[in-house]
Amino acid sequence: MKFYSRKWVKPEDLNANGTLFGGRLLAWIDEEAVIYAMCQLDSKHLVTRFVSEVSFINAAQHGDVIELGLETVSVGRTSITLKCVARNKVTKQDILTIERLVFVQLDENGQPTAHKLAPEA
Amino acid sequence: MKFYSRKWVKPEDLNANGTLFGGRLLAWIDEEAVIYAMCQLDSKHLVTRFVSEVSFINAAQHGDVIELGLETVSVGRTSITLKCVARNKVTKQDILTIERLVFVQLDENGQPTAHKLAPEA
Amino acid sequence: MKFYSRKWVKPEDLNANGTLFGGRLLAWIDEEAVIYAMCQLDSKHLVTRFVSEVSFINAAQHGDVIELGLETVSVGRTSITLKCVARNKVTKQDILTIERLVFVQLDENGQPTAHKLAPEA
Amino acid sequence: MKFYSRKWVKPEDLNANGTLFGGRLLAWIDEEAVIYAMCQLDSKHLVTRFVSEVSFINAAQHGDVIELGLETVSVGRTSITLKCVARNKVTKQDILTIERLVFVQLDENGQPTAHKLAPEA
Amino acid sequence: MKFYSRKWVKPEDLNANGTLFGGRLLAWIDEEAVIYAMCQLDSKHLVTRFVSEVSFINAAQHGDVIELGLETVSVGRTSITLKCVARNKVTKQDILTIERLVFVQLDENGQPTAHKLAPEA
Amino acid sequence: MKFYSRKWVKPEDLNANGTLFGGRLLAWIDEEAVIYAMCQLDSKHLVTRFVSEVSFINAAQHGDVIELGLETVSVGRTSITLKCVARNKVTKQDILTIERLVFVQLDENGQPTAHKLAPEA
Repeated sequence: MKFYSRKWVKPEDLNANGTLFGGRLLAWIDEEAVIYAMCQLDSKHLVTRFVSEVSFINAAQHGDVIELGLETVSVGRTSITLKCVARNKVTKQDILTIERLVFVQLDENGQPTAHKLAPEA
Repeated sequence: MKFYSRKWVKPEDLNANGTLFGGRLLAWIDEEAVIYAMCQLDSKHLVTRFVSEVSFINAAQHGDVIELGLETVSVGRTSITLKCVARNKVTKQDILTIERLVFVQLDENGQPTAHKLAPEA
Repeated sequence: MKFYSRKWVKPEDLNANGTLFGGRLLAWIDEEAVIYAMCQLDSKHLVTRFVSEVSFINAAQHGDVIELGLETVSVGRTSITLKCVARNKVTKQDILTIERLVFVQLDENGQPTAHKLAPEA
Repeated sequence: MKFYSRKWVKPEDLNANGTLFGGRLLAWIDEEAVIYAMCQLDSKHLVTRFVSEVSFINAAQHGDVIELGLETVSVGRTSITLKCVARNKVTKQDILTIERLVFVQLDENGQPTAHKLAPEA
Repeated sequence: MKFYSRKWVKPEDLNANGTLFGGRLLAWIDEEAVIYAMCQLDSKHLVTRFVSEVSFINAAQHGDVIELGLETVSVGRTSITLKCVARNKVTKQDILTIERLVFVQLDENGQPTAHKLAPEA
Repeated sequence: MKFYSRKWVKPEDLNANGTLFGGRLLAWIDEEAVIYAMCQLDSKHLVTRFVSEVSFINAAQHGDVIELGLETVSVGRTSITLKCVARNKVTKQDILTIERLVFVQLDENGQPTAHKLAPEA
């Protein structure tokens, strides 16, 4: 798994406990993952189709640096499935893991359509 | 299930397909859900612990009004579990459903602690 | 009056006194109100035309949950007039009240045009 | 009246009609006005107390440059009252006028307190 | 040099030291400068072409009011060059100075094109 | 040079030409660079001190993926100097290059202080 983007936890990212807001982290991950998927499939017409369950293992604090790791799990005809890990850049402690993030390529009518890496029939 | 907050899909909420960005919707839901949980438990010291799998069923478009419905599934000693539905306010079509969103009350040391609605032993 | 959206006062919503920034609250209200109006009139082509005077009665603090209540005051041929209350979700103390928020439906040329609920002549 | 800050209407500032969102403009004005008031009173501990009624006279479009004018209407013992005009920088057409924006200086307990420019008794 | 826009340093503008984030200040300046340039050249089709070196002389703190000064250094056939100073509104201490900010007018194909103030050949 | 974070150009990142706003890109770079510097020096107390001149070579469009590359140029007693390149992820065309971004470690009084990687005297 390669670790790409790094995020710095700032005041606007905190919940009332002073720890990283869960929804903010999910939004960061979805954005990083779709960029990763767009690069893999050489396509901009991808949407999030499925996110497997998410356990928030450790909290992140104000000022922490988070790094987001992504890898391809599998490639379908119209979709790609990724795995994601968010961890503390310094301690390497996992913050959360998502086993499957599925993105689908859509055509102009919003219907799934085969992408460039679609496996041969 | 009661439908509370409404969101209006604006340009900054869109992905490259011109539909609502998945991560943005997850962030909205997490924020609405933690507010709901804070109100139920009369506590501000809650964090997201778990989000069950999420299927994005239908897309939302620029200008659509989304409404978010929440209901309590169960109440534990230190946690509360919610169900969430996001749907189009006009067509009532579901955009996504999340069966379980779990929030936990933490004490000052970041450890789970019993909340006011904790069931008797 | 029904209370819909709830807002959680976060660091980016605070002024230099550590209380909720007045302009932020007005922006929240305008957005909630136009969504409410769009739902009432089944129209997306509404703009804010008038806001009656606003007294900020009580301050809101970081971490407070605010709820916004809206009701229809009157319906004109091209417009709808709403009343809005923002109050603390826990204490029920009013933060502000706006007696009249007027939204107008515009046509493609930016001119007021009759909406679906326009009273019969 | 002096015209200070200029704002450029960007995609995230637009409503579903493609014109400047009313609430966004109110938030801009409140921020500019409180900065103006802080400078006049040499105090950071100001909050918005009152906004007189607001008529949205003309719409602003994507890409327009708006300029915000402010002047002092009166100075009280604990407050300052401003007038504000928002207009199109190029056409000089008024977008809205607010006759009275009142800011109050608060002490540490959130109570109004006399500012440096308080008129002699 | 005239000082136009004022900015109030808020929590979301701070780095981990609690001082104004350098990148935020550069974004503010670029936005103010392009508005100034659009007004000078009566054109909306300007892009940033060059920013001369930037020394951050003094830090700004949470709650400070910053004022941004701009003046025209020179006008080319397709471009305009500005000088910018950001300073503390109260102490008048410079925060940074940028000697040259160059904006270019582009045509529909993204090529530099002569603007209205282009000097005669 | 290693390429870390990727950014996806969204509507709120665009200027009136529909290309990536220069100031937005500078803010992205400053944030990525300070995170990189914090990781190199194992310190959170860094501020931007200097940015060498910036030429915007090519524009980026809505929907483009940008990647940001960073490398250490030199390490001083209290500072670190980085080089940065922003380029289109697909075409590998440079958008801009910054030869020197200097970050300094500050102590509690805001004075430069030696960091962990300070070269021996």
